[in-house]
Amino acid sequence: MALAEPLVLYTAKICPYAHRVELALAESGLKKDKDFTRYEIDLKNKPEWYQPKINPASKVPAIAYGGPKVPGDQPSPSSTKIAESLVLLEFVADLFPNTSLLPSSPVLRAKTRFFIDAFSTKFTPASFAFISGKGPRDGLLNAIEKIQDLMAPSGFVIGDGKEFTTADAAIIPFFARMEVGLKNDLGGFEEGEGKKAWEALMTEGRFARWRKYWADVKARESFKNTFDEEYIEQSQRSRWSKAREEAAAK
Amino acid sequence: MALAEPLVLYTAKICPYAHRVELALAESGLKKDKDFTRYEIDLKNKPEWYQPKINPASKVPAIAYGGPKVPGDQPSPSSTKIAESLVLLEFVADLFPNTSLLPSSPVLRAKTRFFIDAFSTKFTPASFAFISGKGPRDGLLNAIEKIQDLMAPSGFVIGDGKEFTTADAAIIPFFARMEVGLKNDLGGFEEGEGKKAWEALMTEGRFARWRKYWADVKARESFKNTFDEEYIEQSQRSRWSKAREEAAAK
Ligand SMILES: [Ca+2]
Repeated sequence: MALAEPLVLYTAKICPYAHRVELALAESGLKKDKDFTRYEIDLKNKPEWYQPKINPASKVPAIAYGGPKVPGDQPSPSSTKIAESLVLLEFVADLFPNTSLLPSSPVLRAKTRFFIDAFSTKFTPASFAFISGKGPRDGLLNAIEKIQDLMAPSGFVIGDGKEFTTADAAIIPFFARMEVGLKNDLGGFEEGEGKKAWEALMTEGRFARWRKYWADVKARESFKNTFDEEYIEQSQRSRWSKAREEAAAK
Repeated sequence: MALAEPLVLYTAKICPYAHRVELALAESGLKKDKDFTRYEIDLKNKPEWYQPKINPASKVPAIAYGGPKVPGDQPSPSSTKIAESLVLLEFVADLFPNTSLLPSSPVLRAKTRFFIDAFSTKFTPASFAFISGKGPRDGLLNAIEKIQDLMAPSGFVIGDGKEFTTADAAIIPFFARMEVGLKNDLGGFEEGEGKKAWEALMTEGRFARWRKYWADVKARESFKNTFDEEYIEQSQRSRWSKAREEAAAK
C-alpha cells in the first residue's frame, strides 16, 4: 500500500487513542519512516507549535495529510489537519478501501462501528474506574465479559472473525495497557487487586474467548511493532508509585 | 433510490437522535411507507417486545434491516438490528454511496465526522445545561458561535456547502428543538431567558451565518417532512410547565 500524499502522524507511545491509529496504519501495510512520518509528542511538554498548527484541542492523535513533504516539527499550512481517534480510524480505512479495516457490507460496517461504541460506553468507564481505585474489580471483569459476548466466536472481533477491522484497532490499545497495569499491580486500587483481576482473566472459564483473542493479538506483527511494553510499564510504575507515596505521606 | 432489503426504522417524534436518521433516509430519497416502514415508539410506554427483539438498550433510533417484509410490531429474528444514531447515519450513507450524505474524498469524509464530534462535545452539553436551567445563556450562544465557525461559509456544513451531508443530519434535530424551546420560553431557565437567547440568535451580527443556515434548513423538504413543530412544542410545554408548577408548589 502506498499513500497518494504525505502523511504525518502525531502520536505518543503512552496514549491508547493514538495507538489505535498506529495499528490501523500498520494493518494497511504502511511502514513508519518509509511510507509515513511518525512524530512522537511529549504529552508532558508539548512543543509550542503543536496546538496552533496541528490540533487546537492539543491532544494526540492527529494527522497532517497532504501538502509538501515536511518534517513533523515544521508542519505546512497547506496540509489538512485531522484529529479524534475514531475519525482517524475511518480516515485510514477510507484511504485504503481494499484493506479489511472496514468490511464492504453496510451491515458489517455498522456492526464494526456499533462494537466500538459499545466498547467506549461499557469497557472504558469500568476500566478507568477500577484502575484509578474508584470502581470494583467485578465492574471491570463484567465489562470484559460483555465485550466478549459481542465478539465473533473466534478470530478477530467482527463477522466471521477472519479479518482485522477498525474494531480491533480501537480496543487493542486499551487491553494492552490494562494487562500491564493488572499483572504488575499498578493502579490506584488496593495492593493485590490488580493481580487478582489478571489472575481471573488468565484462569476463569468465562474469559476463555477473551484469552484466545488476546493471545492472537499479541502474536500479531502490527501489535508487536506498535506497543512498547517496557515503556508503558515504567510510565505506569512512576505514575502510581508516586500516587501511593503521596497517599502514604498523608 | 430503492432498498435491496426491507427496512423498519424505530423512532420517536420527540427524539433528536432518531430524527437524525429520518433526515438521512429522506435525503436518500426514500419515502416513508413506500420504501421503508416508520414505526413510532412511545418512549413513555414502550411495547414490551421492543427491548428483547429490537434494541437491548431500549432506546430509539434503531433499524431492523433484511429478513422478510414484516410489520414493525412483528419483528423477524432474521433481520439485523442496528442501534445508535451515528452508526445509523453511516449505515444509511453506506446503503446509498451515490447520495451526497458522505462525500467521496477521504479528507472531506473525515471533516464530516470531525464536525459531528465537535457538535457533540461543544453544542450538546452547553445546550442541555441552558435548557435545563443549569447553565448560562452565554454558554449556549458561544457554543453556537463555535459550531458556526466550523461551517462552510455558505450553504450546508461541509466542504463548499453545496451538499447535504450526515453532518447536517446530525445537527438539525437539535437546532429544531432548541428553536421551539427558546422562542416559546420553554425550559428550566428563568422566565424570559429563552426568549432573550432566541432574540440574540435572530438579531446579533455574530450569528448571521447560523441564521442563514437555519433559514435554508427550514425551507428544505426533508426537514419539513420529518419535523412536527406543534407536537414538539406541546410536549415541551407539558414537560416544563409541570416542572415550573412543581417548583412553585415547593
Ligand atoms: Ca466521541
